Amino acid sequence: MIIDWTKIWQKMYDEMKNEVAKFKTKPTLWAILVWNNSSSLRYIKQKKKWAEYVWINFKLEQFDEKISEIELYNKIKSFNEDQNINWYIVQLPLPKHINQTKIINNIHPKKDVDWFHPNNQGKVLIWDETAFIPCTPAWIMEILKHENINVEWKTVCVIWRSNIVGKPIISLLINAWATVLACNSKTKNIEKFTTQAEIVIVAAWSPWLLKVNMLKVWAIVIDVWFTIINEKIHWDADTKLIDLVWSKVTPVPGWVWALTVACLMKNTIKAYKLQNK
Amino acid sequence: MIIDWTKIWQKMYDEMKNEVAKFKTKPTLWAILVWNNSSSLRYIKQKKKWAEYVWINFKLEQFDEKISEIELYNKIKSFNEDQNINWYIVQLPLPKHINQTKIINNIHPKKDVDWFHPNNQGKVLIWDETAFIPCTPAWIMEILKHENINVEWKTVCVIWRSNIVGKPIISLLINAWATVLACNSKTKNIEKFTTQAEIVIVAAWSPWLLKVNMLKVWAIVIDVWFTIINEKIHWDADTKLIDLVWSKVTPVPGWVWALTVACLMKNTIKAYKLQNK
Repeated sequence: MIIDWTKIWQKMYDEMKNEVAKFKTKPTLWAILVWNNSSSLRYIKQKKKWAEYVWINFKLEQFDEKISEIELYNKIKSFNEDQNINWYIVQLPLPKHINQTKIINNIHPKKDVDWFHPNNQGKVLIWDETAFIPCTPAWIMEILKHENINVEWKTVCVIWRSNIVGKPIISLLINAWATVLACNSKTKNIEKFTTQAEIVIVAAWSPWLLKVNMLKVWAIVIDVWFTIINEKIHWDADTKLIDLVWSKVTPVPGWVWALTVACLMKNTIKAYKLQNK
Repeated sequence: MIIDWTKIWQKMYDEMKNEVAKFKTKPTLWAILVWNNSSSLRYIKQKKKWAEYVWINFKLEQFDEKISEIELYNKIKSFNEDQNINWYIVQLPLPKHINQTKIINNIHPKKDVDWFHPNNQGKVLIWDETAFIPCTPAWIMEILKHENINVEWKTVCVIWRSNIVGKPIISLLINAWATVLACNSKTKNIEKFTTQAEIVIVAAWSPWLLKVNMLKVWAIVIDVWFTIINEKIHWDADTKLIDLVWSKVTPVPGWVWALTVACLMKNTIKAYKLQNK
């Protein structure tokens, strides 16, 4: 069964539109795009579309893929200092010659609406009520809430350990009393772990990694990333087959980034309110 | 087999003594003690002894167990502002009426030699080279190194999810490419997970939780916490039995806090060097 997520998504946008309508000024969200791969371009397009839908200006600054690390670092510094820029994101992933962690750690925490900064990651891990939840982990938790799933007492398998999805979702699940099986690309016999889990969260960026025979009966599958090969979207989970059998699976193409983008807008609005209270 | 840890421990102190001997001034480490339980008192005594052994002044400030949260918070604030106090620790755990997270998050990051601050926890999680490793996770990784154990490709079960041991060791293991089974006190059938692991790290503060029949053959057991009942030390792992069978286990009573204390002195020296370079 495909998890129907449209209702929550619509409700989120309805609430956001109402909120922004009351703002005295129109918020502006800036974005830096360096690597023009098709996934990133698709994301940026969606971010622009939905920012404008909720009455947030969206300004894109695009740099050449060959930009050096020091040049990008200086751009970040100028964005931090520019008083006209209140919030901005750096579209990830960055090209391989750039140290992504170094760039992220230099985004001014007050301007960072993706919430990847270590201070925030630490707050999410030790659970501090002032923590902000990064966009992708935020909607994963929303889905679980929407499906009335309390992770307490449950076993959740998280596939891969990225800083933007894997690690913060592991933090949130541990704090919500789940038993977490944290796998990575060097995990031997990954099916040994996926078959033990009531919930499998897959954010591996590896097409069809998760197959039907790797799941427990009635497992919930949350599929986060996709790869585009020859203009076709390939999910990490073999979604169609899983759907045919017995599990609940999310998403259908289109929903993942719709949700991530919705959470980004929610974070921007939250940041605006913090700055203007 | 009991893991013999004396050599590394001696080497650590030899190196520290040599380093501090070259310092122009004698470093001072302050400690705040609120809860006088026997474990905490034992730790404080050891910290004083070994600080003095490496030529670090140790100054203890003791408060009544009934101190209110706001009073303790104000003490922390005055410690942060006091220019004579360069580094200090707050002995944990704090009494239950005090929000431990709130206190820890207010220790000035530059004076914090336990490295529990969220900014540092986040750096450990996303792995930033400027991260400092908190004392207990630090010696756990030292033991693994000492035993020539590369956790890559291996399954490690971590028992309990405390902010000072469980969570930072989970972060370090994930970054070292281990598959981590993160359990907590609500995990059902915990033996299902311990029996899968080549390494079991138990920091549950729950006497004899880990028994021989809960382990894989040749498992490495790292036992972190103990409880004192009727003046007797009780480990989380049934150490004697485990030792009789086939696993490698650490520690024998005395070693755990010896190692934690050694790592605290190492952190203090590192902090001194940072401040005086």
